[in-house]
Amino acid sequence: MSPTAESSPASTADVFTRIDRRAGGDLDKLLQYLRIPSVSTDPAYTDDLLRCCDFVVQAMSEAGLEARRIETDGYPLAYGEWCKAPGRPTLLFYGHYDVQPPEPLDAWRNPPFEPTIEGDLLVARGATDDKGQSFAHLMAVAAMLEERGTLPINVKFIVEGEEESAGEAIEDFVRKDAGRLLACDGIVISDGAMAGPGQPSLLYGARGIVCAEIIVTGPDHDLHSGFYGGAVANPINALTRILAGLYDPETGKITIPGFYDDVRPLDGHERAALAALDFDAEAFAGEVGVNELVGEDGYTTYERQWARPTLDINGIQGGYQGKGSKTVLPSVGSAKISMRLVPDQDPEAILEALRRRVERLSPAGVRVEIEEQAAAPAVLIDLDQPVMDAAAQALEEVWGKAPLRIRDGGSLPILSTFSEVLGAPLVLAGYGLPDDRPHSPNEKFNLSHFAKGIRTTARLMDLMVG
Amino acid sequence: MSPTAESSPASTADVFTRIDRRAGGDLDKLLQYLRIPSVSTDPAYTDDLLRCCDFVVQAMSEAGLEARRIETDGYPLAYGEWCKAPGRPTLLFYGHYDVQPPEPLDAWRNPPFEPTIEGDLLVARGATDDKGQSFAHLMAVAAMLEERGTLPINVKFIVEGEEESAGEAIEDFVRKDAGRLLACDGIVISDGAMAGPGQPSLLYGARGIVCAEIIVTGPDHDLHSGFYGGAVANPINALTRILAGLYDPETGKITIPGFYDDVRPLDGHERAALAALDFDAEAFAGEVGVNELVGEDGYTTYERQWARPTLDINGIQGGYQGKGSKTVLPSVGSAKISMRLVPDQDPEAILEALRRRVERLSPAGVRVEIEEQAAAPAVLIDLDQPVMDAAAQALEEVWGKAPLRIRDGGSLPILSTFSEVLGAPLVLAGYGLPDDRPHSPNEKFNLSHFAKGIRTTARLMDLMVG
Repeated sequence: MSPTAESSPASTADVFTRIDRRAGGDLDKLLQYLRIPSVSTDPAYTDDLLRCCDFVVQAMSEAGLEARRIETDGYPLAYGEWCKAPGRPTLLFYGHYDVQPPEPLDAWRNPPFEPTIEGDLLVARGATDDKGQSFAHLMAVAAMLEERGTLPINVKFIVEGEEESAGEAIEDFVRKDAGRLLACDGIVISDGAMAGPGQPSLLYGARGIVCAEIIVTGPDHDLHSGFYGGAVANPINALTRILAGLYDPETGKITIPGFYDDVRPLDGHERAALAALDFDAEAFAGEVGVNELVGEDGYTTYERQWARPTLDINGIQGGYQGKGSKTVLPSVGSAKISMRLVPDQDPEAILEALRRRVERLSPAGVRVEIEEQAAAPAVLIDLDQPVMDAAAQALEEVWGKAPLRIRDGGSLPILSTFSEVLGAPLVLAGYGLPDDRPHSPNEKFNLSHFAKGIRTTARLMDLMVG
Repeated sequence: MSPTAESSPASTADVFTRIDRRAGGDLDKLLQYLRIPSVSTDPAYTDDLLRCCDFVVQAMSEAGLEARRIETDGYPLAYGEWCKAPGRPTLLFYGHYDVQPPEPLDAWRNPPFEPTIEGDLLVARGATDDKGQSFAHLMAVAAMLEERGTLPINVKFIVEGEEESAGEAIEDFVRKDAGRLLACDGIVISDGAMAGPGQPSLLYGARGIVCAEIIVTGPDHDLHSGFYGGAVANPINALTRILAGLYDPETGKITIPGFYDDVRPLDGHERAALAALDFDAEAFAGEVGVNELVGEDGYTTYERQWARPTLDINGIQGGYQGKGSKTVLPSVGSAKISMRLVPDQDPEAILEALRRRVERLSPAGVRVEIEEQAAAPAVLIDLDQPVMDAAAQALEEVWGKAPLRIRDGGSLPILSTFSEVLGAPLVLAGYGLPDDRPHSPNEKFNLSHFAKGIRTTARLMDLMVG
């Protein structure tokens, strides 16, 4: 992967200098971006989402792209391009301008939408996921255009607003209209963590996801558990029985019949590669605040995180949740669950298996409904392609170490659609760190990673024509 | 039970006339009482509880009792007495001035502490449980003293403020100080429902109760379920597994080893008596809004409600509970449970069995705590006593039908303490109706029941010396 004499590309030193000079202004713009509470899962934030999309379009224009807002049935897309290098390769940069809900608010050191700088850390909702990381791509193009007035390749940017809410706006857009508009030679996505400090990585896999809410209804109002307890079915008793029938914490196995039928087994080669990665169980447990790591029997932590499917209850509620006791027989109980999928599980088949299982576990006397909330298959990427070589080299030059080839446990529904419709290789290079706490209170992005991320993207553009 | 010529007591017609004349004023005073939000489970209402106790003491004084507030380690007791009939029997009237939390607020037709009159219905939190019912006792004494300037018997009133929160103030008071103060020949409690409209009842049993909260903690903050799912134990997955291991909705059986060991079986005589009671399954199901009644295999609905133990999850919470999905691996999940006990289950032994069971069901990787919240044994009462005959006759005369002898599914922790310390028979005659919705939104008390309740108590006093 090291550059050879004959393929050595032009230096990017000029742009690096420009990037350093722009640093204050780039950070200031990122802070403005982070102040917009673009929480896509809650309709209360609709105006903020629209404002956030316009902010991104404006930032694209200022960077030197031809930019516009693309309307959809859901939240709009921010699109920008610079395509003045005919005959040269085209890179498509994907990002998302929406963020996770900030709750629980009282767990934040500072308000989630008032970004604060603590040493090298920029703390705010969306700092790493994905405003900070995807903004690095845009600032690289801005610096290069400012320095040189031109780019060595063509670039396209598509930034969506429904990644965290599993909306289908971008999926519909790509499938219906965008095969030509988004045509490219590689799709670059930075929306995750590298392996660790100083250790960049290139992902070759991401898990899929299925989300659902299970709602169990008993009596049409909360009842006195003394008068009615024992004679009327309790929906939360039923709910816990259903949920417990989906998963066995003793073995870490999902107990939905057929769930593992299509799971592609890890091959010996990959298991060996994963086993060769550094892993410090104590540090990992300490970072999340648990005494021991547990999971599916027979698999290592990396395998459990990246290459094995899961079922997590993300939230549960019902009945009296205040202080002290209130002896009600509640009317309703509900739980949100998510399942991470691996190749070759089919989201629709998994949802169908879930429905059958829940139906079988539903006791008499209650009504059980399932609301499906999101579904996307897992992806595996062939790393043996020229754009991967360029990305690997850019990462190694900027971060000082050759990237690890790893998988990721998270899910990016758009990956499989991009793969299928655009037929271009996916370059998944996270600029974040494993302790960035995306989706958690006090989410952060290291400022040094923002700076190196900008350099990496700039270097990648030069290396594409190296 | 019908009055015979030789035992026929003086007529109570004079007092009934006085009760009718006082009706407007009595109702007005009850409305003032209901406007005080005396929610004992939530410390935020402390000032209201104290104000409510003072209101009751004041009402007792106005009724003609010597009344005072008795301080305790918890909320104070309202005590009043009229003991100017030496040699005559003494009745102790018990009630509670605290109420259940009003949540969920949006399910109320009107604010819970702004009592509203809808035809015969008085709708407010506490209307039936227990402000309205226990106020009927006091208003009967007030009317009789106003009419006659004297009573045929001695009366004592003790009204507590921790019945709904399972506080131990009255229990401590009775055990330590009150054997002499509360000495009596019968304890009258109206804090429940009669069998149905026009069908009074005398209770000969109430279930005991054990409440507990189970709290399961995993990581010390919410994690991204994609990055960590499968590798770190999910506390809600664990919680549902634990809860599901306590109860089997298919058989309606509690699956805590030893739970049924001390349960006194229903004898054939009592089963026959319960089977002889009218029961309309369709009406019962319709009233609570379910399609079918389910419960413990092998028992009828009355048996399940009154004479068999239960386990209900009263509330559950954890993780993301907002709109849409948020794919977190949560830090904590918790559930409040209550178990209704029957003779001869020992609350301490049941709590110990629960602890052992939860411990055995707790998977690795999470921390599980149990907080005990309340414990009281069940009671069974011997109905074959003179004060029961007087009560039965008063009920029959006022309501037009001989009372049914039934058990009750609810729990009144003070019953066993009264029984034990005072050694006097308990007269449990609810003036409410089964559809009063105590503990639920839109709790109500029928105004006609308030009026008849006052008459019943007045008549009982005369019949005690009949």
